[in-house]
Amino acid sequence: MSDFDPPMTAVRAVVRAALEEDFGTLGDLTSLAVVPADARGDGRFVARRGGVIAGTAAATEVFRQVDPSVTVSWTVVDGDAVEAGGELGRVEGAVRAILGGERTALNLLCHCSGVATLTRRFVDAVAGTGARIRDTRKTHPGLRAPEKAAVRAGGGFNHRESLSDAVLIKDNHLAHLPLPEAIELARDCWPGRVVEVECDSLEQVAEAKAVGPDLVLVDNMSPADVREAVATLGGAIPVEVSGGVDLDTVRAYAEAGADFISVGVITHSAPILDLALDLE
Amino acid sequence: MSDFDPPMTAVRAVVRAALEEDFGTLGDLTSLAVVPADARGDGRFVARRGGVIAGTAAATEVFRQVDPSVTVSWTVVDGDAVEAGGELGRVEGAVRAILGGERTALNLLCHCSGVATLTRRFVDAVAGTGARIRDTRKTHPGLRAPEKAAVRAGGGFNHRESLSDAVLIKDNHLAHLPLPEAIELARDCWPGRVVEVECDSLEQVAEAKAVGPDLVLVDNMSPADVREAVATLGGAIPVEVSGGVDLDTVRAYAEAGADFISVGVITHSAPILDLALDLE
Amino acid sequence: MSDFDPPMTAVRAVVRAALEEDFGTLGDLTSLAVVPADARGDGRFVARRGGVIAGTAAATEVFRQVDPSVTVSWTVVDGDAVEAGGELGRVEGAVRAILGGERTALNLLCHCSGVATLTRRFVDAVAGTGARIRDTRKTHPGLRAPEKAAVRAGGGFNHRESLSDAVLIKDNHLAHLPLPEAIELARDCWPGRVVEVECDSLEQVAEAKAVGPDLVLVDNMSPADVREAVATLGGAIPVEVSGGVDLDTVRAYAEAGADFISVGVITHSAPILDLALDLE
Amino acid sequence: MSDFDPPMTAVRAVVRAALEEDFGTLGDLTSLAVVPADARGDGRFVARRGGVIAGTAAATEVFRQVDPSVTVSWTVVDGDAVEAGGELGRVEGAVRAILGGERTALNLLCHCSGVATLTRRFVDAVAGTGARIRDTRKTHPGLRAPEKAAVRAGGGFNHRESLSDAVLIKDNHLAHLPLPEAIELARDCWPGRVVEVECDSLEQVAEAKAVGPDLVLVDNMSPADVREAVATLGGAIPVEVSGGVDLDTVRAYAEAGADFISVGVITHSAPILDLALDLE
Amino acid sequence: MSDFDPPMTAVRAVVRAALEEDFGTLGDLTSLAVVPADARGDGRFVARRGGVIAGTAAATEVFRQVDPSVTVSWTVVDGDAVEAGGELGRVEGAVRAILGGERTALNLLCHCSGVATLTRRFVDAVAGTGARIRDTRKTHPGLRAPEKAAVRAGGGFNHRESLSDAVLIKDNHLAHLPLPEAIELARDCWPGRVVEVECDSLEQVAEAKAVGPDLVLVDNMSPADVREAVATLGGAIPVEVSGGVDLDTVRAYAEAGADFISVGVITHSAPILDLALDLE
Amino acid sequence: MSDFDPPMTAVRAVVRAALEEDFGTLGDLTSLAVVPADARGDGRFVARRGGVIAGTAAATEVFRQVDPSVTVSWTVVDGDAVEAGGELGRVEGAVRAILGGERTALNLLCHCSGVATLTRRFVDAVAGTGARIRDTRKTHPGLRAPEKAAVRAGGGFNHRESLSDAVLIKDNHLAHLPLPEAIELARDCWPGRVVEVECDSLEQVAEAKAVGPDLVLVDNMSPADVREAVATLGGAIPVEVSGGVDLDTVRAYAEAGADFISVGVITHSAPILDLALDLE
Repeated sequence: MSDFDPPMTAVRAVVRAALEEDFGTLGDLTSLAVVPADARGDGRFVARRGGVIAGTAAATEVFRQVDPSVTVSWTVVDGDAVEAGGELGRVEGAVRAILGGERTALNLLCHCSGVATLTRRFVDAVAGTGARIRDTRKTHPGLRAPEKAAVRAGGGFNHRESLSDAVLIKDNHLAHLPLPEAIELARDCWPGRVVEVECDSLEQVAEAKAVGPDLVLVDNMSPADVREAVATLGGAIPVEVSGGVDLDTVRAYAEAGADFISVGVITHSAPILDLALDLE
Repeated sequence: MSDFDPPMTAVRAVVRAALEEDFGTLGDLTSLAVVPADARGDGRFVARRGGVIAGTAAATEVFRQVDPSVTVSWTVVDGDAVEAGGELGRVEGAVRAILGGERTALNLLCHCSGVATLTRRFVDAVAGTGARIRDTRKTHPGLRAPEKAAVRAGGGFNHRESLSDAVLIKDNHLAHLPLPEAIELARDCWPGRVVEVECDSLEQVAEAKAVGPDLVLVDNMSPADVREAVATLGGAIPVEVSGGVDLDTVRAYAEAGADFISVGVITHSAPILDLALDLE
Repeated sequence: MSDFDPPMTAVRAVVRAALEEDFGTLGDLTSLAVVPADARGDGRFVARRGGVIAGTAAATEVFRQVDPSVTVSWTVVDGDAVEAGGELGRVEGAVRAILGGERTALNLLCHCSGVATLTRRFVDAVAGTGARIRDTRKTHPGLRAPEKAAVRAGGGFNHRESLSDAVLIKDNHLAHLPLPEAIELARDCWPGRVVEVECDSLEQVAEAKAVGPDLVLVDNMSPADVREAVATLGGAIPVEVSGGVDLDTVRAYAEAGADFISVGVITHSAPILDLALDLE
Repeated sequence: MSDFDPPMTAVRAVVRAALEEDFGTLGDLTSLAVVPADARGDGRFVARRGGVIAGTAAATEVFRQVDPSVTVSWTVVDGDAVEAGGELGRVEGAVRAILGGERTALNLLCHCSGVATLTRRFVDAVAGTGARIRDTRKTHPGLRAPEKAAVRAGGGFNHRESLSDAVLIKDNHLAHLPLPEAIELARDCWPGRVVEVECDSLEQVAEAKAVGPDLVLVDNMSPADVREAVATLGGAIPVEVSGGVDLDTVRAYAEAGADFISVGVITHSAPILDLALDLE
Repeated sequence: MSDFDPPMTAVRAVVRAALEEDFGTLGDLTSLAVVPADARGDGRFVARRGGVIAGTAAATEVFRQVDPSVTVSWTVVDGDAVEAGGELGRVEGAVRAILGGERTALNLLCHCSGVATLTRRFVDAVAGTGARIRDTRKTHPGLRAPEKAAVRAGGGFNHRESLSDAVLIKDNHLAHLPLPEAIELARDCWPGRVVEVECDSLEQVAEAKAVGPDLVLVDNMSPADVREAVATLGGAIPVEVSGGVDLDTVRAYAEAGADFISVGVITHSAPILDLALDLE
Repeated sequence: MSDFDPPMTAVRAVVRAALEEDFGTLGDLTSLAVVPADARGDGRFVARRGGVIAGTAAATEVFRQVDPSVTVSWTVVDGDAVEAGGELGRVEGAVRAILGGERTALNLLCHCSGVATLTRRFVDAVAGTGARIRDTRKTHPGLRAPEKAAVRAGGGFNHRESLSDAVLIKDNHLAHLPLPEAIELARDCWPGRVVEVECDSLEQVAEAKAVGPDLVLVDNMSPADVREAVATLGGAIPVEVSGGVDLDTVRAYAEAGADFISVGVITHSAPILDLALDLE
């Protein structure tokens, strides 16, 4: 388990589902027809574009499930930046197994590396400020574990893993309930856990300050307003920014003093990193 | 089952995994703390951006699994285009159930609609030509069924569902085997099935023509070369283009006479369509 | 739950696996293309050949999983004999759902009814004797629950459900262990459970008698030897016959005084009963 | 992965379900009682009857799941014909593991070999003609992958793996739709895929010819009518025969010029091949 | 979803596994033999002993999965105290379904209520102090969700749901690492999350104070030492007590000023609450 | 497979569910933060209290699933008694893997050993009498396999594994049916299987005697009544005692002549045996 690996329990389940999806009922028709059963080969994972790598544990697991006698070795670890043309690792074994696992391994590797790469761009954009980039629960269904690990590989940090690990009070919860009372209810119900509250206005920020949540999430504010929120909270309560943040605007928010900037796009809309498996 | 629904067998499995991921062991801490168990409400799915909708069956299934007494109704069907601000549908029931299912439903709906929307842009870009946009096996692991359905909702067509439904001979298969022999092996092994062959050069196209595969996939060729490939094959064998196709170049390929243009980006890198659930 | 239904827990799992197998990733291509989403219809399950029906609960569950709004009603119950041309039941609902579930429902129904029908032939062949037909663990992997229920629908009885519910000492267990000692070990280890012992000769039968197992299984003996085994055991220990029993020989074994005749062929090699679903 | 192995993803799932079914909650009562934990042994898979072998990968997987230290080796590969009395392979390891896996391994091996053996008889019956034997979707629920692989081991070919990989328009689809229009709808919806159409009369064959499906399935016709259908389609469209085909009639259909003959009985009603595991 | 229900996603999975375990391959032999298929009845859940109820959602789900036409209604909600002889609720429907689900429903209900009841005794023992009773990760494998919900029903609070939702640095982590550095590493890696540190001595408590974790867990200390630890941390950092706490000693710890007292016994060793289902 | 191991099929499923529960989506936050990826260590399983060990196979499987390169070795086998302070075994490998699996392994080991230890106390309490201690179906949902194996490790015996392996007629079944008729129905339906009948009075015992079930279960009787029941049945039918049996009363029942005493508390309410994993 390297620092940016998702739990193997999750990796195994994701890979099993992916392989069942891709092998179907008959298997790899093409290899069965044109590749001899005893042909052996080896391939190199290479980067067609530069970026940050993530997902190697899942890619290894793919070949292990397809054929345990295939060997996979990596010259990078998750979190490494590679340049276009760089080699990431090698796979060696039965050609049918390599070709059978190729697409599934690449789908995982390219997607996770895409998440890591886009995260890294946000991280770099706020370099030198105190702000940290965080992910959200806006992940692809079934892929939260590898995506959240990829965010860390990219230098980001993980926000909630699920509805079940921290309280985050949003506008929808405050329809019929004053913010201070909501925080109090949450503190009563889940003492010893993080209670974060979303504020849509500076008034709410001031109101939140009085009750002291663990974090204040300011949603859809301008950098100027964020700066004021930070000033209001006086360093005592960390400020998280969300909503409308992109690579153009993220630094302004960071410089406004945000402690955290949570960015949905790094998981829900990251384009893949173009990686390939070249057989030799 | 509407025309663009994935099989319910697949939808149920995807939703079950997604909800287990998001509810964790304790459930929705926030709602348990601040929303009364008997509070009822209703919400509207609205489009923050315009695009093409897909994934409504999965979103409905989310609420059905969270709480069967929640009702979901749609004013759109998959494949419909909506404008920013437009309403898609409504959900009504226990507030805890609505808030508990919200993120998972949106994750599915926004992602599928993102796939459909990007597909539609490619489809529109080739309008009036005979070319059809097709997807690839470059999907998110575990999500191939809803993604392939979303491609159809966007006006695209489905290529192979898996390694198991058609033969596609690629360069990796031809390392030690002449192309005609490979096609023959595939025909012998899987008669009555589609045999497609990838050609990287016009020489290969000519060679392929002689043996008559069902489709020729020309990979990473210029539009001019595609035109020549089409001419060579003389209308007898459909031509599919892949590799290096984006919204800027797709029409040139279509006008070059391609029958199919397969585009990985519509599934592996489609940004989400920004949709929301507004509670009332 | 009728008398010959397998547990619903097992039925649901079998049907889920079967539908995932048959719907694949895209669903029913044909119906999606040629049947309107809103077309409704109804169909009749009819017998092309006469036989004994089993598997109706599983067939109902198929449609329930495909589309809960489909209604299925039966004019027979499991265990009923039908004649060629007879109607078994009806299904009504969306045509896409009916056609989508048709093959899976029939696969279950025809197979289970095939098992019940062949069982009934064995049961009829021993009518009037005291012998009872029993099944074995020679079932189709994953289908033991519906097959064992079908045996009962055919008038047979269930032998062990698994390795875990009774002791059956066979020749392989007696390689290095005298039969009496083996029975003693089994009695010590699993008191209060059935201990059955396989005997391959009349000498073994006599040896077994001394220690008193709950049942004696005589394997691959002639009817004459079975008669002698029965005489030896003097009615105190029931005798089960197995091995080399077919429809021609089964009555001779029954008349020889066997209490049970266990027949692998009724589960492992029963041809289907030809049933169909006629749409109207 | 040999040529006739089902995908390991499917094999693992089938074996897991089968072993859970057979080990139950307590395990193998008999071995626990009468076989010492440290007893080791070895056994030979032998053919009681001659036939064609299939399912060795599944049988190996059984012992791997029961106890990874058991070794299994084969002297045959799937597709080999064996004579009565011939040895197929060996298993060596803890006796408890061998006896615990024996029945499940045999259930898979005997059933798959039964499918392969019956398929081979059909294949032999049409030897010298151009006809190929194909399977259908009439498989045992949950066992389609090993059964379709066994058909290939027997020399047959695989028809659709599921509803999801090709279009097959049948009479039920044509209730309210003319055949040419149905074919057109299917072509529009699923371009680049095989579209096969079932014809119940020579009139329909002629009608089909005009629109040009990829295959024509003639259902329940006499060999004479098949010959006429073949003549009508003039070699341009392959003809598949189905319905009412048995070992007595199959050659007549083949000689009538059928390209494919699809036979449900080889999967739904194949009797097992009698194989055994003899301990030494 | 009431306040003390586990997530339905978890409940469904637990109930499915439990029913598969209890119905086996054949089903409820006894009811199949002696209860007519059409017999209907109703039963009352009653308390043989007084205690706190939990697990009603799971018990309801049991009958829903056995037979959806069974109706279950409760006169208590989770968290209610009942006296011996008190009625909890009723179940009405097919007798076979009621008897088939009885044991599984009671196993869940009695166990969860046992957890809630023992928790309540600890909660009552510290009444009037500021201390809160918390659970641990010492749960029965596969049952964490219902057990943690039952703790809340008993008036307790939930500590970590898993290794994945908060940091808890223990002695094993500090073998080669000074405590302050460990806290710093955790803060760097998981900012915005709770970091708790276990201290085995007052020196460690002082050391911890300097770096400021979110909670200090004092393990296996006397109440006197706990009092000193609380004094040291001066109210700024909450103190959690664990180790060697039972019903006799818990109040002394509470009065020593502990904010939290985490007690493994409430989940890992709670005796069941004796509840029964009386048929009428 | 040692004598007291549950089936590996069940062990694997239990461990997989337990690890998914404990690793969640992100994994072991603490180890990821403070333990280097390459740190290796070893630990000793030690007994904090004396008792009987069970569950070692499950504990081994935990580490195998977390990281196959971890090695686990045991100095005890299931069924061994250990004293407080005694070593049970060792685990060696990556520290992250050891700490990640620690809690799950201990949860299984402590619970199973708790069951074995309490069972042993009951077994010891009846030593020298002919009575055998048996378990019931009152197990923790999902954990029946390891719990029933632990009962045997403690010297007890297994009663029914499920509703599916033997008939047990209880008062609820006799509401509208005389006991003799119920036994007859069961014999007719499930010949060759154990039929046990519960009697609540000596009258019922006499009534049962006349029809001859395989066992008579006397429920909630005094030892004196049990003695009379035993006398009535005259040694011909074994007597099982259940209800209201605890460590204080069990010997009196044994001395009254009971053949079996079934005790729910050994599975449903056994406190854990306190075991720990000490890292070195």
